[in-house]
Amino acid sequence: MKYNKVDNEILERLRIICGTENVITDKEKLIDYSHDEYPRQEIKSYPEVVVKPRNEQEVAEVLKLANENLIPVTPRGAATGLAGGCVPVYGGIVLSLENMNRIIEIDKQNFVVVTESGVPLMKFFKEIEQQGLFFPPHPGDESAMIGGVIATNAGGSRAVKYGVIRNFVRGIEVVLPNGNIIQCGGKLIKNSAGYSLLNLFIGSEGTLGVITKATIAVVPPLASVVTLVVPFENIDSAINAVPEILRSNVLPMAIEFVELEPIILTEKLLNKSWPTKQGSAHLMIIIDAQDKDTALSFAEKVAEVCEKYNAMEVFIADTTDKQQTILEIRSHLYESIKNFTVEILDIAVPIAKIAEFVNNIHEIEKKYGIWLPTYGHAGDGNVHIHYMKGKFVNGEIIQLKESEWQPKLEEVIDKIIDLGLQLGGSITGEHGVGLVKKKYMGKMYSAEYLSLLKSIKNVFDPKNILNPGKII
Amino acid sequence: MKYNKVDNEILERLRIICGTENVITDKEKLIDYSHDEYPRQEIKSYPEVVVKPRNEQEVAEVLKLANENLIPVTPRGAATGLAGGCVPVYGGIVLSLENMNRIIEIDKQNFVVVTESGVPLMKFFKEIEQQGLFFPPHPGDESAMIGGVIATNAGGSRAVKYGVIRNFVRGIEVVLPNGNIIQCGGKLIKNSAGYSLLNLFIGSEGTLGVITKATIAVVPPLASVVTLVVPFENIDSAINAVPEILRSNVLPMAIEFVELEPIILTEKLLNKSWPTKQGSAHLMIIIDAQDKDTALSFAEKVAEVCEKYNAMEVFIADTTDKQQTILEIRSHLYESIKNFTVEILDIAVPIAKIAEFVNNIHEIEKKYGIWLPTYGHAGDGNVHIHYMKGKFVNGEIIQLKESEWQPKLEEVIDKIIDLGLQLGGSITGEHGVGLVKKKYMGKMYSAEYLSLLKSIKNVFDPKNILNPGKII
Repeated sequence: MKYNKVDNEILERLRIICGTENVITDKEKLIDYSHDEYPRQEIKSYPEVVVKPRNEQEVAEVLKLANENLIPVTPRGAATGLAGGCVPVYGGIVLSLENMNRIIEIDKQNFVVVTESGVPLMKFFKEIEQQGLFFPPHPGDESAMIGGVIATNAGGSRAVKYGVIRNFVRGIEVVLPNGNIIQCGGKLIKNSAGYSLLNLFIGSEGTLGVITKATIAVVPPLASVVTLVVPFENIDSAINAVPEILRSNVLPMAIEFVELEPIILTEKLLNKSWPTKQGSAHLMIIIDAQDKDTALSFAEKVAEVCEKYNAMEVFIADTTDKQQTILEIRSHLYESIKNFTVEILDIAVPIAKIAEFVNNIHEIEKKYGIWLPTYGHAGDGNVHIHYMKGKFVNGEIIQLKESEWQPKLEEVIDKIIDLGLQLGGSITGEHGVGLVKKKYMGKMYSAEYLSLLKSIKNVFDPKNILNPGKII
Repeated sequence: MKYNKVDNEILERLRIICGTENVITDKEKLIDYSHDEYPRQEIKSYPEVVVKPRNEQEVAEVLKLANENLIPVTPRGAATGLAGGCVPVYGGIVLSLENMNRIIEIDKQNFVVVTESGVPLMKFFKEIEQQGLFFPPHPGDESAMIGGVIATNAGGSRAVKYGVIRNFVRGIEVVLPNGNIIQCGGKLIKNSAGYSLLNLFIGSEGTLGVITKATIAVVPPLASVVTLVVPFENIDSAINAVPEILRSNVLPMAIEFVELEPIILTEKLLNKSWPTKQGSAHLMIIIDAQDKDTALSFAEKVAEVCEKYNAMEVFIADTTDKQQTILEIRSHLYESIKNFTVEILDIAVPIAKIAEFVNNIHEIEKKYGIWLPTYGHAGDGNVHIHYMKGKFVNGEIIQLKESEWQPKLEEVIDKIIDLGLQLGGSITGEHGVGLVKKKYMGKMYSAEYLSLLKSIKNVFDPKNILNPGKII
């Protein structure tokens, strides 16, 4: 691609648009804007300048300027992504939404919140909870920003009952690469007026437009939550119980599966303890209901099903403290292995295929001698697999030499991706394609499908200035 | 537009593709394919030929032939639409999906059903119920076909708890205008791999491709259902209760509002009786729960809220018979006024704006002396307004002279549409744009937005042969 460089004249205009203090060119500060949370550092790339517009008009002016001057622009939220989606591969401008962090309206009559896209989830959760409202989706990292979770159609564990982000976005304001601003949707539950640009922007990873505002559906919270931890001898028994749990007239908020090794590491990391070390695979099931009695009766029903499917025991955590500990350990699983993780996959398969998928991953693990800790969302089929440059030995991770893990990397990842696709899966259930999954798009989709994606990109961004090098 | 006519050579090739018995040119039989359920007959238009392909390969060959020869193709399900979406305005080929009516797989492990797109809802409901499964969305007319409800992103009354069709479509097979076949999605709950063509096709009203198969999410049914009918003095009191009901920790499946006049007419039509004639506006609330006791306790909670909001009384129907009667009357409201309906609108507004919207409609009613019976989905903001060529007098409809209703038609409809849009609404919540709402798209969307829709159409259908003249 032949992009132009950000020269002094452009810099000056950016300062006029966003204010001098919101235009960063200091090399040391640019480091922070060169990467996301993807483990391999070699994908990082420096922007020439970072701008932090304060409103959609400024975003529009930056995009217009960049479009006219053929300068790449990479939009960026909190950079909690795991696929390099906000890495500015062609340099140019990083457009950070961090200054657009106002919650504009909490509308309790229509059960929606109107917010700027740079609001972090933790702020969003806190402010709506104070108003007696609840936002069901919970993508793991609460520092993620609203715009980013919409741009990747993020998921998280509560999708079993409540669905993914897509189901909760009622409207968005988007700045197009040419600097024009459009509104999609609104405070509406139903809308069948024309092609849903709203749903096209959701999951488009900042390649079609920059989301500047969003209208998000929220719900009244259910009063009581109970968490179950259920050990099984192996992953098959655990996963076989899942469809039966879903058939039991109780729809849990979350059904997660975890294997023992990352749990042991996370216990150490946090100095907290998980309810059991039995078996090799556990289900963690979160149930919400309108009151405590109902929640407990739901929990008993689910426990019965698990026992029928050879659960070794059922731990019911009904106090906030006990549940907090379990959740904290679940939330920190990735952190406990992160320093030794080379690649993280988030393949989604049909729920009934999880056991077959995970068993086959363990076969690959044995064959290649690479540790592939695996856990994820049993209730929605989204499986996280980690390619490790360390081995799990006696409760610790022992580092491998580069010569031991590097040569096998590509082959093992390819095998796992192929396996997921053979089972009817997707190369990414919630992280997005970004930079690092791009090479697998051709495995998942036909040439015709990919060519449609390219043509759609061309409709919105004919000069290819917006987050170039991503998705396709 | 300069389309070619269907000549004998094309007819011969269509017969070779679909079989002679599946190619119809008999003028009398073509009448059935010239319209949908939209009340005004003058929008009807005859196709030159109707084809009924038996599988996606035949659909592909028909489209390829039409594309090469510049012949318009209008896809058609059961034609239960209310916006002229399947009317072949440029003649050419009507492609009826009626022969593609097989349910391919009921997958109880993954809670999905794979089906051809010509399966009528009533068949779909019946077959999955026999397998102990439930499909929550319920667009009014059960003769509608799966492909059609996806193409319009249909809604119905149960969207309050379960959402619209979009939320239940996991995958589709689509034949593009060039005859190529693509797969979108699958048996997956989560998928963030590239722009969601799945969601672009949902609601595209057969203008981007022909949906030939769908993978639909289903759920285990909740065991107990209770229906409430709650009369209020006026529409304000009724609608004001709705957000509070939604906040009560009970999420009803449906919250409908109805006004008295259509109820009286439907009672006569069916010779059945509605529980009450008090007040002028009623809420009909359907609650489902895991067992009878819970359903009843939910009903009591909702009843309390209604009483707090000045309900005149609360009727709780807990037997199947009583509920059946109420539902039947609700389902036949349109039928009771259909013969005198000139225009039917399905404007969606934010739920908290329904009362203001309906009150304003009654103002227009008075000002213009046109009867505008109004009812709809209070829980999701979707309001059905009917422009009548009759007056309601002593429980009957008295026909107006054409000179009494015709001259005011356009002005009144325009006023109602403008009102809905001013309140943050959509010109169509569930019926789709089709032919008859096209002229209002410019009121709802900016020129930039519409130009994006046009460019997307052009990506999929550069020769504009697929359902031309619709949406934009």
